[in-house]
Amino acid sequence: MSAYQLLVNQFARLDKLAHASTFLGWDQQVMMPPGGAEARAQALAELHQIRHELLTAEQLGDWFENALQEGETADQQANLREMHRIWQQATCLPADLVQAQSLAASRCEHAWRAQRGENDWQGFLGNFKELVRLSREEAQARQAAEADRFATPYDALLDLYSSGDSSASIGLVFDGLKAQLPALIDEVIERQRRAPHIDLSGHYDIGVQEQLSRRVMEALGFDFGRGRLDISSHPFSTGVRGDHRITTRYKEHDFIEALMGTVHETGHASYEAGLPEAWSGQPVGDARSMSIHESQSLLFEKQLLLSKPFVKFLTPLIHQHFPSLKDVDSDQFWQAMARVNRGFIRVEADEVTYPMHIVLRYEIESALINGEMEAEDIPDAWAEKMKAYLGLNTNGNYKDGCLQDIHWPSGAFGYFPSYTLGALNAAQLFAALRRDIPALDGLLREGNVTPLRQWLGEKIWSKGSFLSSQELISQATGEPTNPEHFIRHIRSRYLEQ
Amino acid sequence: MSAYQLLVNQFARLDKLAHASTFLGWDQQVMMPPGGAEARAQALAELHQIRHELLTAEQLGDWFENALQEGETADQQANLREMHRIWQQATCLPADLVQAQSLAASRCEHAWRAQRGENDWQGFLGNFKELVRLSREEAQARQAAEADRFATPYDALLDLYSSGDSSASIGLVFDGLKAQLPALIDEVIERQRRAPHIDLSGHYDIGVQEQLSRRVMEALGFDFGRGRLDISSHPFSTGVRGDHRITTRYKEHDFIEALMGTVHETGHASYEAGLPEAWSGQPVGDARSMSIHESQSLLFEKQLLLSKPFVKFLTPLIHQHFPSLKDVDSDQFWQAMARVNRGFIRVEADEVTYPMHIVLRYEIESALINGEMEAEDIPDAWAEKMKAYLGLNTNGNYKDGCLQDIHWPSGAFGYFPSYTLGALNAAQLFAALRRDIPALDGLLREGNVTPLRQWLGEKIWSKGSFLSSQELISQATGEPTNPEHFIRHIRSRYLEQ
Repeated sequence: MSAYQLLVNQFARLDKLAHASTFLGWDQQVMMPPGGAEARAQALAELHQIRHELLTAEQLGDWFENALQEGETADQQANLREMHRIWQQATCLPADLVQAQSLAASRCEHAWRAQRGENDWQGFLGNFKELVRLSREEAQARQAAEADRFATPYDALLDLYSSGDSSASIGLVFDGLKAQLPALIDEVIERQRRAPHIDLSGHYDIGVQEQLSRRVMEALGFDFGRGRLDISSHPFSTGVRGDHRITTRYKEHDFIEALMGTVHETGHASYEAGLPEAWSGQPVGDARSMSIHESQSLLFEKQLLLSKPFVKFLTPLIHQHFPSLKDVDSDQFWQAMARVNRGFIRVEADEVTYPMHIVLRYEIESALINGEMEAEDIPDAWAEKMKAYLGLNTNGNYKDGCLQDIHWPSGAFGYFPSYTLGALNAAQLFAALRRDIPALDGLLREGNVTPLRQWLGEKIWSKGSFLSSQELISQATGEPTNPEHFIRHIRSRYLEQ
Repeated sequence: MSAYQLLVNQFARLDKLAHASTFLGWDQQVMMPPGGAEARAQALAELHQIRHELLTAEQLGDWFENALQEGETADQQANLREMHRIWQQATCLPADLVQAQSLAASRCEHAWRAQRGENDWQGFLGNFKELVRLSREEAQARQAAEADRFATPYDALLDLYSSGDSSASIGLVFDGLKAQLPALIDEVIERQRRAPHIDLSGHYDIGVQEQLSRRVMEALGFDFGRGRLDISSHPFSTGVRGDHRITTRYKEHDFIEALMGTVHETGHASYEAGLPEAWSGQPVGDARSMSIHESQSLLFEKQLLLSKPFVKFLTPLIHQHFPSLKDVDSDQFWQAMARVNRGFIRVEADEVTYPMHIVLRYEIESALINGEMEAEDIPDAWAEKMKAYLGLNTNGNYKDGCLQDIHWPSGAFGYFPSYTLGALNAAQLFAALRRDIPALDGLLREGNVTPLRQWLGEKIWSKGSFLSSQELISQATGEPTNPEHFIRHIRSRYLEQ
């Protein structure tokens, strides 16, 4: 058997173990009673351990070396490249660092759950400094292992979530946003202040909300013979080819939130369902990165669902499910759904203000990991940037400031940029879609997403991990990620219509 | 580390893999959309493979040998004995036999799914003869590996499901049933023929049936913080400590069937929940055997739920959930629930006729495996025994005869006796419970099962696999499995009250 084939077999085994962890994780969040927590955590840790043993088995080094001599096809070489990246990520850290970091992250995150509510920055800092120290070590070790790929330690962490997006390119893109978005936010809010305020709060039966969610998912191409919709406290999307599980949460007084969440997760699930079938279970058949994944969910949620033509299609469905809203017309639904507000909390932010929350976090975490800032300095930096980007004062309000997110307390540095890269890519892809499908608005008014899905399937979903994220965006749209499409989208949606 | 401790660690890993398979299996039957079938089958096969690799790893032979010298405590020795039994079962078969058998069973079962409906015995026989040949080989190999434990090849298969129950002891017990039960069935049916027939068929909302099931489960001690009730096409019980999952199925015209199924599975789940916590995840902490497991489910379903005092407790709950039944009194509910009929189909049989279905199967499968009967002879043997035991004619009616069960087509020989051993043990345990708790009837009338659960917890559940099944029954009741308690139970319930 060729070394390449041996690697293919090994990664196929890893994929089946990942299947087990995936659905045990889904069950944990959706079905499991509280009494199951302890045994489940242990079983997941064991699967993780077995996966790690298979991935770091001694013979893999030789297999990679030999495979390089074997003359694979271009597709196989791409698969080999992705296998190697995963293997490198798993093997480049000393075992004692991994263990120390995992322990520090557990401790920090656990304490944070209480400290956040208590606004206890000083208490948090005690644990967090150690976690930052270890995360810097991790970043340096990862950078050292592939010095030709990573310009800074932080770039090596970025690669875990947004492979192909460097801090150099992100810096340029985010500078573009900083230069234009704050003023744009002022303009949009001022304009909306003058428009009538549409209040949709009321009582919306959760069973009926679920029916509406299912109806909209079907309209967007979700196949319930190959997936499920359930409830969890935080909406998410997971699964494997043929079995895509998405969750949402319902509020009795607000049907929009669940609907947006459902459509967002439908975007994630559509990407997964459209990955190249021939490469199922192999690394090159996987989704490219978080920044591409988020571009698909945000394309569905922000570009598509929030477009005026699609809200036109949606309006009779809302009337049918909630007859009490029969006097609200499509423009009014749109106004209610597209409301823009400045706020402290990232996860509650609308699409216009959201990027500034991310730019702020990106600037802080990259400086932190690269040793240009210390953990103690975060609150001041946060307050200063919050003032500059969103005009809000967070002095002393840690719980609605730097303590609000789970990412840092759990040691996930490098994740934040993918949210906004996703939003920018979504706007850029949608602009290209409009260019390639001139009839798009008419189709969306009829709820016909078939051409849109075909386009995304061909340009993004079927490409798996064959291309880097920037190659993928370039081939689909004609240029790498460019913030101007997002700015134009905001201007056009909020100021020109 | 001692060899014993190495084994403990290895079996703890196996237990965590079993956890993964358990909940992936539950999901497969309860939650998974059809599109997930292929990937799930592959993931489960991979987990099975990894489990097999861990269980048959070369060093285990040495560990067992060394552990025997180390002077463990009595409890540790019991754990070692159970580990060794599992290891022996996994290692005593040549790999090519396991593979051939697994293939033959898949083929035979798959074809059977169509052949049963078509009454196609001849078509079935073609695959089945090969499966019997391989199962005989399996039985002989298992017997040869532990010749001191197994008097016949069939005994080695029995050990997979009912460890501690030999064919010698089962033969005696079943002879006792054969001598008395057929005449008793005549008597009971004749007596019921003269009683008024209570017809409960009607329309029963499935949501309300579920509420009633949950209410009764809670009354029986099921903790919904440590378990779930769901729906599947075949009711079952599975899970781990702290997370017990049972399923049932509802029929719109009959609320009794789901209720009985739920209570049956609650018995299984109660046993699992009561296993010795200190030995969680180790073989000696597992449930003893199928014959003991079935004794707990049948104790809950037949001895407890079908007792007149418990039906008295149940009656106001039924009235509350189904007001249309408010004129049916507790005696009438009992009469409707305790109806006895002769029928072809085992899974539809009541507790009085059920054992004769099992005696018939036991006699055929033991002769088949021990080479005293050929597959071709099954239909004649079936017809003859059906006539003798239940007075029914199955000549030429294979689909309601020897083709009705999945056990033989899937290669599960030696499983059937556990159903009736369970029923006999349940009657015997309940008789001992009555002896030890004289106030039992009064407690059941109030729906108070606390003393009953305490007694079962102490005598059965907390014993895990420390004792053999016959030791367990003897210590709890004063004697090994004795069919007289079951006969007395039938006589008392159906002829004397």
